[in-house]
Amino acid sequence: MKPLAGIIMGSASDLSVMQAAAEILDKLEVPFEINVVSAHRTPEKMFDYAKSAADRGIKVIIAGAGGAAHLPGMVASLTPLPVIGVPVKSSNSIDGWDSILSILQMPNGVPVATVALNAAQNAGILAAQIVSASDPELLKRIAAFKESLKVKVNESQSETDKVKLRFKA
Amino acid sequence: MKPLAGIIMGSASDLSVMQAAAEILDKLEVPFEINVVSAHRTPEKMFDYAKSAADRGIKVIIAGAGGAAHLPGMVASLTPLPVIGVPVKSSNSIDGWDSILSILQMPNGVPVATVALNAAQNAGILAAQIVSASDPELLKRIAAFKESLKVKVNESQSETDKVKLRFKA
Amino acid sequence: MKPLAGIIMGSASDLSVMQAAAEILDKLEVPFEINVVSAHRTPEKMFDYAKSAADRGIKVIIAGAGGAAHLPGMVASLTPLPVIGVPVKSSNSIDGWDSILSILQMPNGVPVATVALNAAQNAGILAAQIVSASDPELLKRIAAFKESLKVKVNESQSETDKVKLRFKA
Amino acid sequence: MKPLAGIIMGSASDLSVMQAAAEILDKLEVPFEINVVSAHRTPEKMFDYAKSAADRGIKVIIAGAGGAAHLPGMVASLTPLPVIGVPVKSSNSIDGWDSILSILQMPNGVPVATVALNAAQNAGILAAQIVSASDPELLKRIAAFKESLKVKVNESQSETDKVKLRFKA
Amino acid sequence: MKPLAGIIMGSASDLSVMQAAAEILDKLEVPFEINVVSAHRTPEKMFDYAKSAADRGIKVIIAGAGGAAHLPGMVASLTPLPVIGVPVKSSNSIDGWDSILSILQMPNGVPVATVALNAAQNAGILAAQIVSASDPELLKRIAAFKESLKVKVNESQSETDKVKLRFKA
Amino acid sequence: MKPLAGIIMGSASDLSVMQAAAEILDKLEVPFEINVVSAHRTPEKMFDYAKSAADRGIKVIIAGAGGAAHLPGMVASLTPLPVIGVPVKSSNSIDGWDSILSILQMPNGVPVATVALNAAQNAGILAAQIVSASDPELLKRIAAFKESLKVKVNESQSETDKVKLRFKA
Amino acid sequence: MKPLAGIIMGSASDLSVMQAAAEILDKLEVPFEINVVSAHRTPEKMFDYAKSAADRGIKVIIAGAGGAAHLPGMVASLTPLPVIGVPVKSSNSIDGWDSILSILQMPNGVPVATVALNAAQNAGILAAQIVSASDPELLKRIAAFKESLKVKVNESQSETDKVKLRFKA
Amino acid sequence: MKPLAGIIMGSASDLSVMQAAAEILDKLEVPFEINVVSAHRTPEKMFDYAKSAADRGIKVIIAGAGGAAHLPGMVASLTPLPVIGVPVKSSNSIDGWDSILSILQMPNGVPVATVALNAAQNAGILAAQIVSASDPELLKRIAAFKESLKVKVNESQSETDKVKLRFKA
Repeated sequence: MKPLAGIIMGSASDLSVMQAAAEILDKLEVPFEINVVSAHRTPEKMFDYAKSAADRGIKVIIAGAGGAAHLPGMVASLTPLPVIGVPVKSSNSIDGWDSILSILQMPNGVPVATVALNAAQNAGILAAQIVSASDPELLKRIAAFKESLKVKVNESQSETDKVKLRFKA
Repeated sequence: MKPLAGIIMGSASDLSVMQAAAEILDKLEVPFEINVVSAHRTPEKMFDYAKSAADRGIKVIIAGAGGAAHLPGMVASLTPLPVIGVPVKSSNSIDGWDSILSILQMPNGVPVATVALNAAQNAGILAAQIVSASDPELLKRIAAFKESLKVKVNESQSETDKVKLRFKA
Repeated sequence: MKPLAGIIMGSASDLSVMQAAAEILDKLEVPFEINVVSAHRTPEKMFDYAKSAADRGIKVIIAGAGGAAHLPGMVASLTPLPVIGVPVKSSNSIDGWDSILSILQMPNGVPVATVALNAAQNAGILAAQIVSASDPELLKRIAAFKESLKVKVNESQSETDKVKLRFKA
Repeated sequence: MKPLAGIIMGSASDLSVMQAAAEILDKLEVPFEINVVSAHRTPEKMFDYAKSAADRGIKVIIAGAGGAAHLPGMVASLTPLPVIGVPVKSSNSIDGWDSILSILQMPNGVPVATVALNAAQNAGILAAQIVSASDPELLKRIAAFKESLKVKVNESQSETDKVKLRFKA
Repeated sequence: MKPLAGIIMGSASDLSVMQAAAEILDKLEVPFEINVVSAHRTPEKMFDYAKSAADRGIKVIIAGAGGAAHLPGMVASLTPLPVIGVPVKSSNSIDGWDSILSILQMPNGVPVATVALNAAQNAGILAAQIVSASDPELLKRIAAFKESLKVKVNESQSETDKVKLRFKA
Repeated sequence: MKPLAGIIMGSASDLSVMQAAAEILDKLEVPFEINVVSAHRTPEKMFDYAKSAADRGIKVIIAGAGGAAHLPGMVASLTPLPVIGVPVKSSNSIDGWDSILSILQMPNGVPVATVALNAAQNAGILAAQIVSASDPELLKRIAAFKESLKVKVNESQSETDKVKLRFKA
Repeated sequence: MKPLAGIIMGSASDLSVMQAAAEILDKLEVPFEINVVSAHRTPEKMFDYAKSAADRGIKVIIAGAGGAAHLPGMVASLTPLPVIGVPVKSSNSIDGWDSILSILQMPNGVPVATVALNAAQNAGILAAQIVSASDPELLKRIAAFKESLKVKVNESQSETDKVKLRFKA
Repeated sequence: MKPLAGIIMGSASDLSVMQAAAEILDKLEVPFEINVVSAHRTPEKMFDYAKSAADRGIKVIIAGAGGAAHLPGMVASLTPLPVIGVPVKSSNSIDGWDSILSILQMPNGVPVATVALNAAQNAGILAAQIVSASDPELLKRIAAFKESLKVKVNESQSETDKVKLRFKA
């Protein structure tokens, strides 16, 4: 199936974080592609990727990067598509602050939809929500996924019940 | 016209920041509504707003808030729609860090698409990009808007030229 | 015995931190209940919990959460009871700053009594102090507990004495 | 009437912030006293104040301080009563971070109920909530106060309506 | 004269900060050019500028930008020339932290020589030092400039002498 | 009288902050000298100053500096005398964090006694305390000064009394 | 020998950090005592310790504490002696920021000579420098200790020489 | 061959980070020297090193240091040569913030070209770029090195392809 979402990352070492985006898109049945595109090491490839994405049918781009993370913002400057940025806490990052601020603090006119540090799953959900603007069935699958979160929380109640039993008060 | 985007904010004092979202949506011809909904002072109203938004035809919600900014995240927990969060540097904020972190650092399963501090215009653009997933004409207007940014930058070249002329080097 | 304090947390994974609140309440003989209630994954359950707490005889609520920690503030917006917030340094937290600021920086009208990062024991003591406003015997037990802290500090003097003996000066 | 809440602050210059605590206690009809007590300049007075508070009938202490803010924590170490700390952004403070961390990060056994930076009104509400543990009428006044916040938020809707009217979208 | 240093900035509003680079280059007799080039609003112009700089005889590029400041790093990814980055504390910046971290924290292989916040003069001196690697006369002018700083410091001694005279001790 | 304390600062612009050190030393009758010595602009002068201080009878050095504040630490590396560092929040500082960390975080073997941001008065008191190790009369004057602080705090009680009178509670 | 320096710490768990102060004082032949004194758990003991120190012949106090570290500042408020504060990065600390700011940011009139995070050795050296104001022989031992640091640095040159040999350039 | 670049560091313990500068200079065939020079423990050696570097034919100095990192800035104050600073995250550093700010925030007139935390390789590349201002062959080797980065990124594409194959979407 033709991919609707494009996942890119600055380095293959970001894959351990970024594959959560692939997993949730797969679960929500949103076709996607996944590539390594580095703003700093392969700038021409980044240009081509961003410039051609809309024409190739991509509806939303998820870009993850660490440190001075320029990939999400630069891609956003080169495409009219919505871009979701995932700050990655890479080994050369200062507790993630550099990644977060480099992605979040974009100037007027060029937004990047930023999610939490390492939150690639949330980037995938957000991408699905964006695609669902023209796909009511997908919106239902997202709603069902959100319902499933409640079940998990409620099941974990048994753990606190066990703690409670240890005390007489 | 029936609104496709819903702009909400925790307090009318956020309006000076948040109206930039209204302005760009108006410019891009995306019908919107705008309301004061406080997570902490009108929680029931927030529940009703978030729960009913999808059924009322809203496609995306922009929520702005300052300090311990719970509005975007709580709305996101109550709707399958994509939610865009605008951290507002309100008077009781610690340089905006509290607003940013309260909005950005959402747990797995409940994303908020966060934009830069006070960046309500970018929230509006992002909302338009999301709506454009099912509206190719809107995507063209967004592309045209992005082109117009280049013109402005290029026009400002004359200012640096004037500085250059002051020096002999 | 009917619980006077309610301990809630956003996820069962917070239990390793939050059980210290249960332990000290048990020690101070304040009856309590303990539940998993997630602001973002079970918002309706949170509403019901917070709305019904006062009527069920609860006098104070202890709420622990990590990351964008909305649980304490949202519960505070839904009950006239005092709410104590415990910032939890969860795995997806940025050194705890996100949890602290999300809980602490509440707007005027809706306070959350915030304790130190991971300081669930202190939340329990604070809850006991609040309950003790109408229970002089409990206030005495709290005073006795505080006295016991001195004994421990004084007993540890022997350790520094040993260090001292290693030096001739 | 005999005061139930004690408001103290490290310096009379904190009064512009701290009087909001007095105002809300007055509004909620909680009798209070208000004093300047400096941990660093009048440590003996602080000792006497904290040691005698419970015996004088005080039920809760609100302590505000800026910079290296030791007053709330030291008072908490000297009384079994609950202590509420208000971090004050004084002129010699580093954006308030020093006050917040000095008050919040208390060790196990000695909690301080910390509110937001400069949030003396919230400290007053919290004090009233604590006193209300033995005064159901006060709890009703607090609930009524919280209701009044909703009215104000809803009234401000007219301001966003005016903004809406300026746009055709 | 053919420019050896290229000064670029993301927005003409950065000119009030960045002209200090022009002034010191002029004083040290290093020919330069100055342009507005925005990474996010004119990415194609940025590509052309960076790709052609070495061939046009430019020896060093000074790039200033605020917020999520991608200009210095992206230019560095597109040229073998040394790039000096000036973090600009623009109005939409979070105390300058975003600009500093976005410019400084570049990944291995793509360095940016970062100077202090708003320190465009230092960027100009650094550029002159780089050019001086092949121009011993310029190195002498730089050394003379550094000597002139001492004279200014020593002249200011008279001000402290005046303070001293006010005291008897 | 021969100076016992040496006050130095990196720039005459620090004088507005640093003169408080001179004022308190004068009040406590500790003879002092005051000079502009820049680590970065007059490094040779700094070397000479630090190397000769002990032989000239100086007992303690107070060094104030802003930004990347190297003066206190470098002087400490060049003299066996105790050195007190005053972080100055200069115009090119990032909220004072750079000055504080540059002065405070000295490596093992080379301490700098750091005081609060802009706290030149406290640096002066600390210098007097150090000199008083061999001057019991000075220790008495310091004790008297500390007593005088209490009087001021107690006098300010009248201001809170006035606030109290405005309320009926 | 009668102790001239007093080392105190808030908890015996700080001993692993604080014993470096004892070691260097021993090496520099400054007699000292060492005790556990907690501001928050044994406030009365702290009062007695601080009030009696000068009369017992103590010339300088070294106080180490973590988290909301009130011990150094409170002791400084209770004695005319110079007090050196050691911020300890304890397990419940937020990367040490809380300890540093709680100790450093003292108000006018009550200085604490703060050293780097965990830098108990430097606190010991500083204490020796203070005692040396009335002991020229001690000043010589300090100067000799500082000389010994150079020897160690110079000896480590062999390690870089080995690295150099690995390369042909 | 006579060294053109000088690598210095405050302590041999910085060698594990700093040797990456030696490796890349070796690879790019830039002759270099490497020494341990401590600003705080061997200030005279530092003076001699910095003062003599230009006369010995050195074209650029790379200085690495941690904590209150004064070495790069002090060397820059003593030589007309360009100085590159490497903030080292040493064991006594506060997450690297102290090193970064101590090196980056230099006053006007005395720049230090700062690279990312621990980014010694980038410091080496920058040094090579500076030397290449008078060596066109070196500039070509740098350009070739940058090209080689692309190859590595493109080769890593196979890893994301493997991830892609795991999903059906």
